[in-house]
Amino acid sequence: MARKPVIGVMGPGAGARREDLENAGLLGRLIAEAGWVLLSGGRAEGVMGAVNRGAAAAGGLTVGVIPSGDPDDAAPEVAIAIATGLGSARNNVNVLSSDVVIACGIGLGTASEIALALKAGRPVVMLGCGDLATALFDDLAPSWITAVDTPEQAVDAARGRLV
Amino acid sequence: MARKPVIGVMGPGAGARREDLENAGLLGRLIAEAGWVLLSGGRAEGVMGAVNRGAAAAGGLTVGVIPSGDPDDAAPEVAIAIATGLGSARNNVNVLSSDVVIACGIGLGTASEIALALKAGRPVVMLGCGDLATALFDDLAPSWITAVDTPEQAVDAARGRLV
Amino acid sequence: MARKPVIGVMGPGAGARREDLENAGLLGRLIAEAGWVLLSGGRAEGVMGAVNRGAAAAGGLTVGVIPSGDPDDAAPEVAIAIATGLGSARNNVNVLSSDVVIACGIGLGTASEIALALKAGRPVVMLGCGDLATALFDDLAPSWITAVDTPEQAVDAARGRLV
Amino acid sequence: MARKPVIGVMGPGAGARREDLENAGLLGRLIAEAGWVLLSGGRAEGVMGAVNRGAAAAGGLTVGVIPSGDPDDAAPEVAIAIATGLGSARNNVNVLSSDVVIACGIGLGTASEIALALKAGRPVVMLGCGDLATALFDDLAPSWITAVDTPEQAVDAARGRLV
Repeated sequence: MARKPVIGVMGPGAGARREDLENAGLLGRLIAEAGWVLLSGGRAEGVMGAVNRGAAAAGGLTVGVIPSGDPDDAAPEVAIAIATGLGSARNNVNVLSSDVVIACGIGLGTASEIALALKAGRPVVMLGCGDLATALFDDLAPSWITAVDTPEQAVDAARGRLV
Repeated sequence: MARKPVIGVMGPGAGARREDLENAGLLGRLIAEAGWVLLSGGRAEGVMGAVNRGAAAAGGLTVGVIPSGDPDDAAPEVAIAIATGLGSARNNVNVLSSDVVIACGIGLGTASEIALALKAGRPVVMLGCGDLATALFDDLAPSWITAVDTPEQAVDAARGRLV
Repeated sequence: MARKPVIGVMGPGAGARREDLENAGLLGRLIAEAGWVLLSGGRAEGVMGAVNRGAAAAGGLTVGVIPSGDPDDAAPEVAIAIATGLGSARNNVNVLSSDVVIACGIGLGTASEIALALKAGRPVVMLGCGDLATALFDDLAPSWITAVDTPEQAVDAARGRLV
Repeated sequence: MARKPVIGVMGPGAGARREDLENAGLLGRLIAEAGWVLLSGGRAEGVMGAVNRGAAAAGGLTVGVIPSGDPDDAAPEVAIAIATGLGSARNNVNVLSSDVVIACGIGLGTASEIALALKAGRPVVMLGCGDLATALFDDLAPSWITAVDTPEQAVDAARGRLV
């Protein structure tokens, strides 16, 4: 088996907070250092941009699954762009292709990805998603959610979920 | 313009509560009586089945956007089956094709549909979705959510959102 | 079972020939008169526009499965717009949702739809598709192609394929 | 820009001929040696399996865009599995994500991918696709097709199309 572990990091684009961006940058670095593939929504904005910059700077392999049909729309740090042309329907491709999903901050797109990941049986690690989202998804899929406080804890939780 | 108003009703399948099923049946009837097209996830289970039975019994036009690629997988009361073959990626097709989305009960698929609808700028009426989901989505998209207590209020709210 | 027979008519948009448009208009009328649902790619251009005008003028029910995520992009004669937001990936939704596919003229999109329909086990009637396309697809899926010369023959062939 | 050139190799699964499999194995090796990323439909069967084995044996990076939603369905030589859950609608993702598409043998899926690639403005190199398919697609998109006789010529043609 040549297949490498894939960790999907999902988070807000334009609406990301400073804290989300800092967390994302560190997540990218830690994922690269663990030798895992980083998968993200692939655009340059917000959490997607920050996590790819973090991973690329640490020499990691970055996959971006983008909503448009043009690979050039991917963030510059994305090594492999999957240009889906699917719009937000690509959110389901993101999570199906991830062994574990880390949600880094919350927004509408991220909320849809958490829900779709859980529906597909992918474990979800929630970092900085707020009490409401964490409580809701923990209620809807009790044993599949791990809420954490730091990127280091998120990566540890992801490691524990990889089989 | 031949296009008819389309009201999407989204809700849990196997996990639907008795209350959700009763609400869905009445929603289907009220949507049919309003002369609108009912769009749903199209399967026979749960809210999807109940809303289609309600609409069909009242002579309404029922469209089912199903995850499988076989039109025969649609609920028997679905008049027009859109067999997407997209799995849960079809959730985005459901909401894009709806002028207004009514969420009737909550589950993981429904949560993804609420999030995707709001992201795409579709107004969402929430009926029986619980305090957590209502608070979360109202927080993420303040002016696009209407929380209601009865199917009649849901249909009134949908009417107010149709332009 | 409330489900109505769905006939998908696929054909070129901007590149349609005058002959394709005339055939499409008549196909639309004949499909409506047969009491079937017309499904098309839903845009106003070329064969899509002509077949919807023909069907709507004869009182038929028209479903348009469009590439964009905005129902208002559908041709004005489309009664039910399925706004997929999938781009050309929606071509597979078109054919999966059709009981029989009629190809009216040939172009790149139409060629993809013929191929996808045959792959999914949908019978295809080819009208005005030219010798090359007809020979190729008859070679790739021998018993699933019916080549015809007129819209009347196309509708007869479709009737024979409906089970 | 971290993005690597992506060459998509498309071809029949179960219906592949011995010649297609031999061509695919050599294509995989040549693509890896050129330092490009190999993208394929990702399943273990036919041309998909052979091209991934060829590329992996030569140390290349292999991306498989599979129809199912389970990454474990990818061929064992696929390093990065994109589990789309889209069925044949994933064919459009394959071609949009490729800078150049090489068709290696012909079948219904491959025919759909050639058509979708050309529609999206991706150059297509045709190897062992037969006279009918080559003539048809050359007719539909004259300047975007290069017909070749050997894997070496295919890779040369792909190189010429990379900008």
